[in-house]
Order: sequence, then C-alpha cells, then structure tokens
Amino acid sequence: MRRADELRDAVEAYLGSLVFAPELGRLEKTLRYALDSGGKRVRPVLCLAVAEASGAELEAALPAAAAIELVHTFSLVHDDLPALDDDDERRGRPSAHVAHGEGVALLAGDALLVEAFRLALAYEDPRVARELADATLGMIGGQHRDITGDDGELAEVERLKTGRLFVAAVGLGLLAAGVPDREHGGWRAFGEELGLLFQVVDDILDGDGFAERLGEEGARELADGAAKGARAVLGGLAADTSVLEELVEGLAVRTS
Amino acid sequence: MRRADELRDAVEAYLGSLVFAPELGRLEKTLRYALDSGGKRVRPVLCLAVAEASGAELEAALPAAAAIELVHTFSLVHDDLPALDDDDERRGRPSAHVAHGEGVALLAGDALLVEAFRLALAYEDPRVARELADATLGMIGGQHRDITGDDGELAEVERLKTGRLFVAAVGLGLLAAGVPDREHGGWRAFGEELGLLFQVVDDILDGDGFAERLGEEGARELADGAAKGARAVLGGLAADTSVLEELVEGLAVRTS
Repeated sequence: MRRADELRDAVEAYLGSLVFAPELGRLEKTLRYALDSGGKRVRPVLCLAVAEASGAELEAALPAAAAIELVHTFSLVHDDLPALDDDDERRGRPSAHVAHGEGVALLAGDALLVEAFRLALAYEDPRVARELADATLGMIGGQHRDITGDDGELAEVERLKTGRLFVAAVGLGLLAAGVPDREHGGWRAFGEELGLLFQVVDDILDGDGFAERLGEEGARELADGAAKGARAVLGGLAADTSVLEELVEGLAVRTS
Repeated sequence: MRRADELRDAVEAYLGSLVFAPELGRLEKTLRYALDSGGKRVRPVLCLAVAEASGAELEAALPAAAAIELVHTFSLVHDDLPALDDDDERRGRPSAHVAHGEGVALLAGDALLVEAFRLALAYEDPRVARELADATLGMIGGQHRDITGDDGELAEVERLKTGRLFVAAVGLGLLAAGVPDREHGGWRAFGEELGLLFQVVDDILDGDGFAERLGEEGARELADGAAKGARAVLGGLAADTSVLEELVEGLAVRTS
C-alpha cells in the first residue's frame, strides 16, 4: 500500500507521460501548461487510494485517475476565462488564457475534456466513461447555478461543483478495482464527505463561499463534521483505509 | 429504406426528445436553443443513411447520429464566442452567447460535448465513444491551426475541421450496424470525399476558404472532383446506396 505522497508522485509521472492526440499539434503545449500547474492532485490521489484499498494494481487505476484530473483541469481553464471568473492567475502563474490567448485556452479546455474521455475509454467497461460524463455534467450544472446566482442552497451548488468529481474519483477507483456495485454505497458516501471537507476548507482559506455564509467558526464546524463523517464511513468499510484516513487528515489541516 | 428528408425528420424528432442530465438545471435552455437552430443535420443524416444501408434499424443508430450532431453544435457554440470567431449571428438568429450570455454559452458548449459522449456511451461497444473522441480531437486540432494561422495546407485544416466529423458520422453508422472493421475502408473514404464536398461548397457560398484560395472556378472543380470521388466509392460498395447518392447530389447543388 503506497502512501499519499507516493500516489501523488505516481500521478505526476503518469500525467507527464500522457500521449495526446497528434492532431492537436501545437495546442498540446497549452494542455501541458494547464496540467503542469503544481496542483495538489487530490482527486486522482483519492481515485488511486480507493483502487488500491479495494485491491487493484496501481497501473489499472492510473488512466481513470488521470481522466478525473483532466476534467478538473479543463474546468479550471474554462473557469478562468474572462467569460466566467476572469482570473489572470492560477497557482501563482498566468492563467492559460493569459499565457496563450483566450481562443487557444478555450480550445485547450475542450481538448482536455475530450482527452479525459479518451482515458476513461481505455477501459472496456463503459461505466467508467459514463460515470465521468455524469459527474462532469453535474459539475457544469453547479457552475451554471453559481454564475447565474440560481443557487438557493450553497450546499447544493458545492455538492455539484466539487462533490460530484470527488464522488466520481471514488467511483472510478472502485470500477478500476472491479468492486461490485452493491458495495459502492459506503465508499461513495466517503467521497461525498471528503468533497465537502475539501470545499469548506478551501472557502475558509479564501474567505468566501461557506466561510462567508457561515462565518469562519461555522465553516470550521462544518469542516470538522465532514471530516468526522468521512472517518466514520471509513471505519465501516472492510478494507485497509489507512491511506484514505491520511487524506482526510491532510485535507482537514491544510493551509494552502 | 428511408429517403434523406425522412431521415432528417427522424433526427429532428430524436433531438427534440433528448433528455439531458437533470443537474444542468436551467442551463438546459441554452443547450436546446443551440440545438434548435434549423441546421441541415447533414452529419446525423449521413450517419443514419450509412447505418440503414448497412442493414441497421434506424433506432439503433439514432443515439450515435445525435451524438455527432451534439459535437457539431458544441463546436458552433464555442466557435461563435468572442474569443474565437466572434459571430453574433448563427443561421439568422442571435448566437447562443448573444442570446444567453458568454459564460452561459461557454458552459452550454461544454455540456453539449459531454452529452454527446453520454449518447455515444449508450452503446456497450466502447469503440463508438472512442471514435467520437478521436474525431472531436481532430476537429479541435483543425480549429487551432485555423486560428493560429498554423495552416500550411488549407486542405489539411479542412480535413481536420470538417472531414473528421464526416468520417466519424460514417464510422458511427457502421459501428451501430455492426459492420466488421475490415469492411470500413470504402465507407470511410466516402465520408472523406463527402466532407470535402461539403466544405468546398460551403466556401463557394461564403466566398472564403477554398474559394478564396483557388478562385470560384477552381473551387467548383475541386467540389466536382469530390462529388465524383464520392459517387465512385459508393459504386464499389456492396449495398443499396441510393440515399447516400441522394446526399451527394444534395450537397453538390446546394445554394444555402
């Protein structure tokens, strides 16, 4: 069983070795720029940790893990565009559209999304790509509620925007490991709690979202509740979940 | 065997009955706005005609045909954005971003692309969605060459931007009909010729692209050659290709 930082190294190595469609030509540079962002790789690490805890070989889950990260990266590239959040910086570097131009960034986001499906379609089981599609549509729906202010319930927006991809990271790990559907429930509940934990801590660090709505103390309570819920679900799973507990701990106390 | 206009009616009815992911919420309105555009539905009709000529039931090919049209529609919504072609009108109506806002149109394009994959993933055979992914990446690569002027050879750009989706329309029709790979060659060559014919006539009508590069007469010769090539390939196929011949004729003489 690999530790979380070893899984992250495996993700980095795999992402770095991805072969994109040759027809993308020089657009590939923008895909790589967006992917080489120094992100935390939380979602793919989660996917790999679930797969390993479920008895899969790391290699069997790497395409699925990378697919999740590519969907996440596509969403960042498009979110940063002037038409949406208009963010000039991403993790201390110029956003993709600032570095390479708006039109190119738009196309690079599109291409990342399709490359994610190409990875998910490396599996003969179509459920892998189906789960990715469903989660991505949920994420897009959450983003739409967010920008139109059609967000009656912040928790619901965040469940879509962030939670769906976390649950899919878990789901793809289970599918890569061949875990039968009837055993997915607890695992997916864990993904849901972890997604909430991640988002609330994010908002505390940024001073927006849940932190703005509930105050820092209220948000901290919500985060603690999600961490507790995540640990409780893990405790009920018949698997060595030590790496997943490490992930919960890491997300609960992170400062960046 | 249905005529081309009957196939088009079937496409319209199927597109109108599509059920999108409920999480898209009100974003669905923009997807439908973009889809209800009065387009010619050339690609999905081609897909259905190939499937029927290959012995498939219409119903078996409709999801694949719709998937192709959704990818095409996604590309139009994104192409029209200010970051790319900045077109305010599309077929006599305001473009999606003019009607519903830039951010919403961007997300609607993303959602159309993912819904296309959801349709392709209705098939147990993962090759349907794989072919869609490969063609879409080719199309995006062509679009990138187009906007960056990295288009040494116009024919190559158009082969990617238009041709790839035409060939995929043929390919998905073959896959939906269960035609063995070894028999795909001629059919796909037909898709390639038809895509070229479509694009050259488009350029003649718009006075750009091939018409600008070769002059109207030169472009007309190229279109005639493509139509001739398409008919020649059809003649060599062991199938009733009368509807496909009707398609060639319709594309060769179209005036809008």
